[in-house]
Amino acid sequence: MRILLVNPNMTGAMTDRMADIARTLVPTGTKIVPLTADRGFPYIASRAEAQIAGAIAYELIAEHADGADAAIIAAFGDPGLAGARELFDFPVVGMAEAAVMSAAMLGERFSIVTFSPVMRRWYEDAARDAGLTARFTGVRTPDTHTSDLENAQTALQEDLIALCRHAVEQDGADVVILGGAPLAGMADDIRQRVDAIVVDPISAATAQALALLSMTGRDSFGRRHAKPLAKAAEGLPAALTRTFARDKTP
Amino acid sequence: MRILLVNPNMTGAMTDRMADIARTLVPTGTKIVPLTADRGFPYIASRAEAQIAGAIAYELIAEHADGADAAIIAAFGDPGLAGARELFDFPVVGMAEAAVMSAAMLGERFSIVTFSPVMRRWYEDAARDAGLTARFTGVRTPDTHTSDLENAQTALQEDLIALCRHAVEQDGADVVILGGAPLAGMADDIRQRVDAIVVDPISAATAQALALLSMTGRDSFGRRHAKPLAKAAEGLPAALTRTFARDKTP
Amino acid sequence: MRILLVNPNMTGAMTDRMADIARTLVPTGTKIVPLTADRGFPYIASRAEAQIAGAIAYELIAEHADGADAAIIAAFGDPGLAGARELFDFPVVGMAEAAVMSAAMLGERFSIVTFSPVMRRWYEDAARDAGLTARFTGVRTPDTHTSDLENAQTALQEDLIALCRHAVEQDGADVVILGGAPLAGMADDIRQRVDAIVVDPISAATAQALALLSMTGRDSFGRRHAKPLAKAAEGLPAALTRTFARDKTP
Amino acid sequence: MRILLVNPNMTGAMTDRMADIARTLVPTGTKIVPLTADRGFPYIASRAEAQIAGAIAYELIAEHADGADAAIIAAFGDPGLAGARELFDFPVVGMAEAAVMSAAMLGERFSIVTFSPVMRRWYEDAARDAGLTARFTGVRTPDTHTSDLENAQTALQEDLIALCRHAVEQDGADVVILGGAPLAGMADDIRQRVDAIVVDPISAATAQALALLSMTGRDSFGRRHAKPLAKAAEGLPAALTRTFARDKTP
Amino acid sequence: MRILLVNPNMTGAMTDRMADIARTLVPTGTKIVPLTADRGFPYIASRAEAQIAGAIAYELIAEHADGADAAIIAAFGDPGLAGARELFDFPVVGMAEAAVMSAAMLGERFSIVTFSPVMRRWYEDAARDAGLTARFTGVRTPDTHTSDLENAQTALQEDLIALCRHAVEQDGADVVILGGAPLAGMADDIRQRVDAIVVDPISAATAQALALLSMTGRDSFGRRHAKPLAKAAEGLPAALTRTFARDKTP
Amino acid sequence: MRILLVNPNMTGAMTDRMADIARTLVPTGTKIVPLTADRGFPYIASRAEAQIAGAIAYELIAEHADGADAAIIAAFGDPGLAGARELFDFPVVGMAEAAVMSAAMLGERFSIVTFSPVMRRWYEDAARDAGLTARFTGVRTPDTHTSDLENAQTALQEDLIALCRHAVEQDGADVVILGGAPLAGMADDIRQRVDAIVVDPISAATAQALALLSMTGRDSFGRRHAKPLAKAAEGLPAALTRTFARDKTP
Repeated sequence: MRILLVNPNMTGAMTDRMADIARTLVPTGTKIVPLTADRGFPYIASRAEAQIAGAIAYELIAEHADGADAAIIAAFGDPGLAGARELFDFPVVGMAEAAVMSAAMLGERFSIVTFSPVMRRWYEDAARDAGLTARFTGVRTPDTHTSDLENAQTALQEDLIALCRHAVEQDGADVVILGGAPLAGMADDIRQRVDAIVVDPISAATAQALALLSMTGRDSFGRRHAKPLAKAAEGLPAALTRTFARDKTP
Repeated sequence: MRILLVNPNMTGAMTDRMADIARTLVPTGTKIVPLTADRGFPYIASRAEAQIAGAIAYELIAEHADGADAAIIAAFGDPGLAGARELFDFPVVGMAEAAVMSAAMLGERFSIVTFSPVMRRWYEDAARDAGLTARFTGVRTPDTHTSDLENAQTALQEDLIALCRHAVEQDGADVVILGGAPLAGMADDIRQRVDAIVVDPISAATAQALALLSMTGRDSFGRRHAKPLAKAAEGLPAALTRTFARDKTP
Repeated sequence: MRILLVNPNMTGAMTDRMADIARTLVPTGTKIVPLTADRGFPYIASRAEAQIAGAIAYELIAEHADGADAAIIAAFGDPGLAGARELFDFPVVGMAEAAVMSAAMLGERFSIVTFSPVMRRWYEDAARDAGLTARFTGVRTPDTHTSDLENAQTALQEDLIALCRHAVEQDGADVVILGGAPLAGMADDIRQRVDAIVVDPISAATAQALALLSMTGRDSFGRRHAKPLAKAAEGLPAALTRTFARDKTP
Repeated sequence: MRILLVNPNMTGAMTDRMADIARTLVPTGTKIVPLTADRGFPYIASRAEAQIAGAIAYELIAEHADGADAAIIAAFGDPGLAGARELFDFPVVGMAEAAVMSAAMLGERFSIVTFSPVMRRWYEDAARDAGLTARFTGVRTPDTHTSDLENAQTALQEDLIALCRHAVEQDGADVVILGGAPLAGMADDIRQRVDAIVVDPISAATAQALALLSMTGRDSFGRRHAKPLAKAAEGLPAALTRTFARDKTP
Repeated sequence: MRILLVNPNMTGAMTDRMADIARTLVPTGTKIVPLTADRGFPYIASRAEAQIAGAIAYELIAEHADGADAAIIAAFGDPGLAGARELFDFPVVGMAEAAVMSAAMLGERFSIVTFSPVMRRWYEDAARDAGLTARFTGVRTPDTHTSDLENAQTALQEDLIALCRHAVEQDGADVVILGGAPLAGMADDIRQRVDAIVVDPISAATAQALALLSMTGRDSFGRRHAKPLAKAAEGLPAALTRTFARDKTP
Repeated sequence: MRILLVNPNMTGAMTDRMADIARTLVPTGTKIVPLTADRGFPYIASRAEAQIAGAIAYELIAEHADGADAAIIAAFGDPGLAGARELFDFPVVGMAEAAVMSAAMLGERFSIVTFSPVMRRWYEDAARDAGLTARFTGVRTPDTHTSDLENAQTALQEDLIALCRHAVEQDGADVVILGGAPLAGMADDIRQRVDAIVVDPISAATAQALALLSMTGRDSFGRRHAKPLAKAAEGLPAALTRTFARDKTP
């Protein structure tokens, strides 16, 4: 089995870290294929950036779709998720959606903790768009934005633990999601120090990709009645053009 | 790993069939422990029955909680789910919730097809209670109730396929859930003949149990701040009384 | 007329206090029949406890259904309410639902004030589940849990008055519900000192039971088309088994 | 006790019929005071008419507020209800709100059946505005409008019974509300022939007025913190002007 | 073109100020016809007042409907809006609805800032009733009520700027609506000092009236299938009576 | 004034037709600048296509942003709308959002009629995403898809009129939106033959662009506190890269 792990951001180190985490969750023989955007943004933090990055993600997926069994869109706001699900003939998982859906199955109330106030409204929308408003206790962030994302994990760890505790003690969360790719991998340490179930979104996305694969038959995806009509695209990369044309010639 | 598969109905044959399906999904070394209600109802079909059956499910889980890693409540309306999640220190998965959450990650719109009009409103509530109303295209059922659940699979297969096709072609579903334990195991055949992604709820529940286990640390569950206070129950079975008392003495 | 007042908690003194309040509201000739759970929990404070207590409530109602005209489930989270309404052939009223529905008819905005932060989320859900989120201004509670429920009324009176005033002045409530059986009977004093309409849930439930009885014909309940199918239960108390079987033999 | 039964329509015969029904529900010593609009419309059937009729209702209530204990706005769309609740220092009940709130306490799902397609959207809004969309199964009406409201009861009885049965058998209603003042009093006959709980809105409103009165203290209403500021109105009838001015001089 | 600017309040100076603002937005040849309530209230601040003022607004519109192309109901809570839309055969715009709909097209999140805590809940309802709850970040007001509305603009300017900044920096608003007729015209100054898009509701209402006129054909309004049936009103002013009767005789 | 009319589809004839309609609505001196996607799809009909087309729209807007006062995204599903609003310092209007918001200000209930069943779910989502579900009566389409969009207007006119009448008479719509760029310009004829207010989305979008411009000050847009942080994009066209960098150098 091959699962594409598509980072619509350009930061390859972040892709690698996420791929390493994903590999700890998949069974032997399942291959995680890390893909990083080759243009766009170092780190997506707005809907405008996500619009572009989502389109780039389609190019990456289309290029590697042959032989792939699933794809993970590995950025917390799930750029391009709904369209990718229409377009490709295998499960596509979003990090934010996977995290909030999983959180809702792990406890009654969940919070999102993240690294910057800049992300707040987009992450609020992730819970709302999943339909889980009634069980969402909000986003907790530091008061100010940190531009040094590379060192966010060390610089912010104590702050994030404090925010998780606020989410639990003041907001009543059973589950805390550590939102945003820059926090990938911090859950293992943080969950030792917080009295809640702590969810790492890339782990949630990987686990959901495996779950969706194991409960469905691969060939149903290609036969979906609701699939968009075949389209002749122009000016797009060849693999993506073939995908829209439903041309299966390799 | 041990996953309790708790059938709050009394029909052992149904438990066995669901356990067999679950076993096809779990990795080697993971044990499915089938448990069947020893009192209550042959098949739950109302909220009153679910109230009682949910309480019985707690007894079964408590009795086998020692050494267990997760529990599946294996009846489509998820009797007792919210309480079980508070009470036990491991993930608890409901068949209906797991199916609708998975369906929402597999496609944009989903339907539920089931074997009797009697189940319609309860199943409608399953989608609503999960927060997924906006993506739910409704429940399709035969016009009349079949009391012969044992032979439902053979008697109803053609009807169910026709209902699935209505769900897809008229209601616009990408994903169809075959709701209700009596239909467990039919998805493999039906998905060959329906142009949609077909979800079998016990498969969805098993896959979600594995997913939730793989993304969390077991000991977080016991430390949850939001866990109910310890309680001295009276007149309940010993294991369940110990569970409410948070008494870990085996 | 006979109205069953079913306390799914085991605390008989609480049942007696609530029955005394109910008796002040019913006309001469209407009998309040107090029933107290003989197993389960001294005081329900979680969904897990409510799952079990609701099932016990059905046993109590079934045992006394003969000759009864209505039942009140006398615990604020309404354990077992939806199922009881399906099962029994007379009106069944829940304390929380009766209180929030009444509050919404008494004013535009309402709050719930209760005795412990432990109850917060369950009580929030009571307003949400009734569909009244848009008119609900939230739950106010003391910061810490009081385990001494017996003396809650004297110990907490001043705190509760302060919380009611916050609900009115800061949250904009027209109506304040004193939620939770331990506060039953406090409304008379508190309403003298708070500039709002104060609702006592057991009074609301009793008044609603009388209201529902006076506007319906008793025999319609037995003829409901949507009533669950008759079921052969096993291992349940005789009266409850007869109820599920729709066996009217006394 | 005095309860004002305010018909914002000009049809006195309708007021009398509703007052007769209300009188069968109130205890000895409680007086129903029927009031009929002296200008406006024979029968309100739109929001524009309701805007005007609601303002007229305030004049009637203000004129008779002295010594009154509650008021019922006796037209199904509840003209002026929210404002009346702010303005007057006693409970004000609306026929539609009382009916839908009561229906939701009597069963899980409810429908409204009425006499004309013209009323459909207003009545749909009654359920939505009460927050009860999730439990509402819709409005059923004859296909064409009957202008002869006086004889509606005899002319339409069979049609209405058929509509009630559709609401029950096809829409899944447990409870059917016979919406609209022209149908007042038909419930007694119709409920013998329909397998559902049938609610007569004027009975529901009367029962709710009694319920709200019995659970509150009259003097709380005048002390409400959220009451609008006193206002100097101009050009309105004297009693209503005094009401807005909070002038208690009789 | 003639646009009626109907102030359902009695304060003519406020009407004049709003008409002056409206005139700056309309093209040459479009006439703004200011109309002020001749009875009722100096300034509407509650639903009861709005019920009456809305009915008075209909009289004003009906009196001047001949030759009119649109009407603006120039009070922030939109008294009588839904009914006016049914009744008159041209577009009717409400200040609150126009402001919140425009705000939602100008940015992702919007707040309302107003002059008194008394208006809070009515203004909250304006966002909710428009369906825009998910994008509404709340109402900000001074802590105390100012009765001197005439001088509100000078007295409150600094306070309002501070409230706007809170709405932007703490609540995350992209757009701030200056709610309430007493603040009409302040937006020009305030927007220089606040880092957000600032909406003046009378400007929004005027702009929306022009927009709706330019995109529709005038004669469609009279042909609407969903228009209420013609009605014989009694005791209402002649022009309004003719409007309800659909009598086009001038 | 310059308003960019951005067609994210590649069909220039469609852009020209929409630009012609827009020009009939703008005052003398306001220039409509038609822009057509130079790659992508002839006609967008799915979310995947919209993801890509929205990103292309940003390139077109960025290229022409200098001196522009507003932009219209001229495709019914509003590809890229939310992001464009963040990114550019002037109003950005979407055809679908403008149409549904306008429809909700023109009447109580609205429908969308379009040319193909393929568009149904996307157009349903347009009403839902705007928050207007409660006033939306659904999408009506022909039963089968027409691939010949160029001749859709002549081939489908009678069908569309019939669908509009169904929307009005059976679904209760006051307002009908003719959704989808291929229908642009048909409203003038259709509204003569349908008893409803008929909305042409490109007219609605143009009218809303003018409305939003007239009620706001241009320089507020650049000062928005909630604007995303400046970003260094890589591999994107120069103008768009400068936009993300907030580099105002022409």
